Order: sequence, then C-alpha cells, then structure tokens
Amino acid sequence: MSVLPPGRIHHMALVVRSIDASLVLWRDFLGLRLETIMDIPSDRVRIAFLGVGESKVELVEPTDDTTGVARFLASKGEGFHHVCLEVSNLSEELTRLGIEGLELIDSAPRRGAEGPVAFLHPRSCGGVLVELIEAPGGPSWSALGMKPPTS
Amino acid sequence: MSVLPPGRIHHMALVVRSIDASLVLWRDFLGLRLETIMDIPSDRVRIAFLGVGESKVELVEPTDDTTGVARFLASKGEGFHHVCLEVSNLSEELTRLGIEGLELIDSAPRRGAEGPVAFLHPRSCGGVLVELIEAPGGPSWSALGMKPPTS
Repeated sequence: MSVLPPGRIHHMALVVRSIDASLVLWRDFLGLRLETIMDIPSDRVRIAFLGVGESKVELVEPTDDTTGVARFLASKGEGFHHVCLEVSNLSEELTRLGIEGLELIDSAPRRGAEGPVAFLHPRSCGGVLVELIEAPGGPSWSALGMKPPTS
Repeated sequence: MSVLPPGRIHHMALVVRSIDASLVLWRDFLGLRLETIMDIPSDRVRIAFLGVGESKVELVEPTDDTTGVARFLASKGEGFHHVCLEVSNLSEELTRLGIEGLELIDSAPRRGAEGPVAFLHPRSCGGVLVELIEAPGGPSWSALGMKPPTS
C-alpha cells in the first residue's frame, strides 16, 4: 500500500476548564468562527468547534472527573490535547501503520462526532496524541452507517 | 479596531530529540511533504517544515542544551510546543490584544524564519503557546525589511 499524504489538519484539540471562558480568547479576541457547541454525554465532555481556514480548533471541557480528559486537566492543566489529520481511507491507513509497527489505540475506524476516526498512541508519535479522521466519501462512512454532513 | 479572523493555522510546532528520527513518522509513515530543513544557529535549533494542506508541521530539534526549547525537551520530553495562526496585520493585532489584556511575549512584530512573528504567553491562552505570523503582503514585511517568498 502506498502512502497517501493527509489532506489537511482537520482540527487540533485543547482541553479547557470552561468552554464559555475559553471562547473569550479563541472567538472574541483571536476571531475564530464558532461553528458548534455540543454535549457528548457518552464521553462526559462538552465540545466546541471553531473554524480557521480549512481547519478547526476543538475545545474539550470535561463534564465530570472520571474520564481521561478530566485526569489530563487535573494533572497537567489546560492545554494542547491532540491533533487530527484527515486521510482518504482510514482502514487502509491503520493497516499500513500497524504493519510499520506503530502502536494504535484504535485498530479499526470507529464513530466520531465528525466522521470515522482512530487514535494513534503518543508513544509512537513523538509524545503527540494523533487522531486520524476519514474524509467524507471514504469507505468507512458507509461501513459504520455514517452520513457525511450535507453542508 | 475590529477583529479579523485568522486566515489559517500556519503551522504547529513539535519539539523533537532528532529531526532525522522524527521524519520516519511524519514524512515516511504519515506522508507529510518535507519542504525544508534548516539550521537556525542564532536560536540553537535545527528545524524542519512538512506541509499538510494549507498548514505545516514544524519539527524543532535543539542543537545544544542552553535554550528554552532544550529545557522543554529535558523536562517534558518530546511533544507539542506551539501553534501559529496567520493574521493579516500583526501590529494591529498585537495592539488590540494588548488592550484586551493579553500577556504578549513580543509586543511588536519581529523577524521569524517564515515572516514577521510574535508570541502570546500561554498564561493568557489556556496553557497554549500561540504564535502569530503576518501573511505575505502585510505591512510588517516591509517595516522589518523582509521579502515574501517568491514561490
């Protein structure tokens, strides 16, 4: 399998204590476009996406103290959490990266808020938590029963 | 002064022990396009830029142990260092952010490897070190005697 370059930085995610307080910086002061705020009860977080060019900044606010993100916030404080790169075929990419010996947190695509996603372990990525998301139209969307956004 | 949204994520910078070793992940495994590797002797670092869509990933390798980046690597290990947003008028942006009360590391544009830049303090940015760079054609380029790249 050949290596297809990722299409873009889909988003970078920041862990924050409070989305409302963080919007003062990212929306009001720096001028990023607020696109959406939503609760993800299954993950016990509230998230916001702000657009900048072809990418987004995701703000992640833990809604209780039981999750990995909440422990991250408690131990390290607010800051960078992960970066997400968009790829055209996530299953193929994961197979190839697994063969290369990378440690995969998710060995197969799973349903994310914005499409099929999988995480790579920071131990294999120079201390950076890397998420991969499949571009709309890729094969994992239908395999997971997901529909790309219409807009 | 009105808030102009930043045009794009110009780059995100990662501190690495070795650019050569890190290229195996970012270029060979993940497929990002290597654009340039250069020594910045004044900053005692070696850097690489890899393209992904309209953005870049910057790898920063300290070349001695006296700098802030070297201390970052010694204390925290490899990982995310900063994100850089592209703005159209850096001087105006810094003036406005200063009035809003943000802590500026650079209160005026200075010469960066890729254009006029300034850093905002992570204390004012939710734990994230934020760099701003002026888009080619902005007023700080000529004010600092810098020429935009021809390509």
